[in-house]
Amino acid sequence: MQPEGCCCQREDLPWAGRGTKLDISGCRFSLYPMDSDFVSIILNALEKTDTSGVWSQSDALSTVYRGKLAYVADAVRGLFVNAFRPGVHMALEGQFSKGCPGDCDGDSLLTREGPVPNLPLVGEKHFPVQAKIALYPMGIPDYIDKIAGVWRMAEKARLNPVSIHYATRISGDVHEVFDYLEAVCRKMEAEVPHYILCFTLSVNSPTQE
Amino acid sequence: MQPEGCCCQREDLPWAGRGTKLDISGCRFSLYPMDSDFVSIILNALEKTDTSGVWSQSDALSTVYRGKLAYVADAVRGLFVNAFRPGVHMALEGQFSKGCPGDCDGDSLLTREGPVPNLPLVGEKHFPVQAKIALYPMGIPDYIDKIAGVWRMAEKARLNPVSIHYATRISGDVHEVFDYLEAVCRKMEAEVPHYILCFTLSVNSPTQE
Repeated sequence: MQPEGCCCQREDLPWAGRGTKLDISGCRFSLYPMDSDFVSIILNALEKTDTSGVWSQSDALSTVYRGKLAYVADAVRGLFVNAFRPGVHMALEGQFSKGCPGDCDGDSLLTREGPVPNLPLVGEKHFPVQAKIALYPMGIPDYIDKIAGVWRMAEKARLNPVSIHYATRISGDVHEVFDYLEAVCRKMEAEVPHYILCFTLSVNSPTQE
Repeated sequence: MQPEGCCCQREDLPWAGRGTKLDISGCRFSLYPMDSDFVSIILNALEKTDTSGVWSQSDALSTVYRGKLAYVADAVRGLFVNAFRPGVHMALEGQFSKGCPGDCDGDSLLTREGPVPNLPLVGEKHFPVQAKIALYPMGIPDYIDKIAGVWRMAEKARLNPVSIHYATRISGDVHEVFDYLEAVCRKMEAEVPHYILCFTLSVNSPTQE
């Protein structure tokens, strides 16, 4: 185990009341290009993406960005748009989160100010995305009400929410979907002490529905 | 939206106190072979897997199995082992869940009895798996204690738990990992009204750590 690590899935910390009061959001994600050329697709996307606004760490399974929400969300958006290739089926799985009682003050970049760096570079690239999300507001009895509110947000954003077992399907332009994910995070950080927003974005799926 | 759907991410149900008292567990998952031959890898694995013990539904993003936990977990294990190809990097992402207040009595297979059908067919196939998990016990204030207990279970099972931001890394033989996931589900269904266990299993990653 990593004694220097800190997260809500750790057992050796005095959990309750710990955590951080700093404005640290994070996103852990994995990019899955269903293509034998997956390594170069991922490396090429990483190279094009400006991660100067976030703290970043990768391992064999996933990458985590941590910092202020605006920069975290912008970096994930940039990476996904940069990885897109016409005709290549690809999925991005991950979760945005904030407020874990086991979180710590480190491993983040909170000094960044000013406009986000990636949106100006990728904002003109558009493609349709199929997605599913699942929101987990932790430690509160009325979590279902929070989930319902976020469902209605998707309806208002015209992302065509459809209920499926254990998740909600949404669909729209890539930027509409990322705008929505960030808006859900903003709403949750205002309303609950700790949330996780799990998401899967898929492009170019060969499956007809 | 699907008026006939039922799940915890749905906004038009009277949530509190609803749900089902039936013994319905579920797993929603996606298989990601990072190979241009991904369609045949997935279809071939589906064909080899005995899903007679579960209710199943697939869409463009994922597949869901629902029924008694033993058969749900066995079907997911069977599919993953059947999809394994030496040298092909592949990930399985999904979540086991039970107890959603918005769940319903339908869309499941609860009549199955007797031994699980897939383990006898795949139990002799062994390969190492790198994994990450994140457990979300919903609606209770002491959820962190539940997460800590599951961390210690991984230690006792010699799966080398390592804390990372927002998740726990584990590793072991594919069957040790699936045994552990099922044991966590058993523990959670005994201890909390509603849980979600998110997991990512990865094989043949080219990333050296």
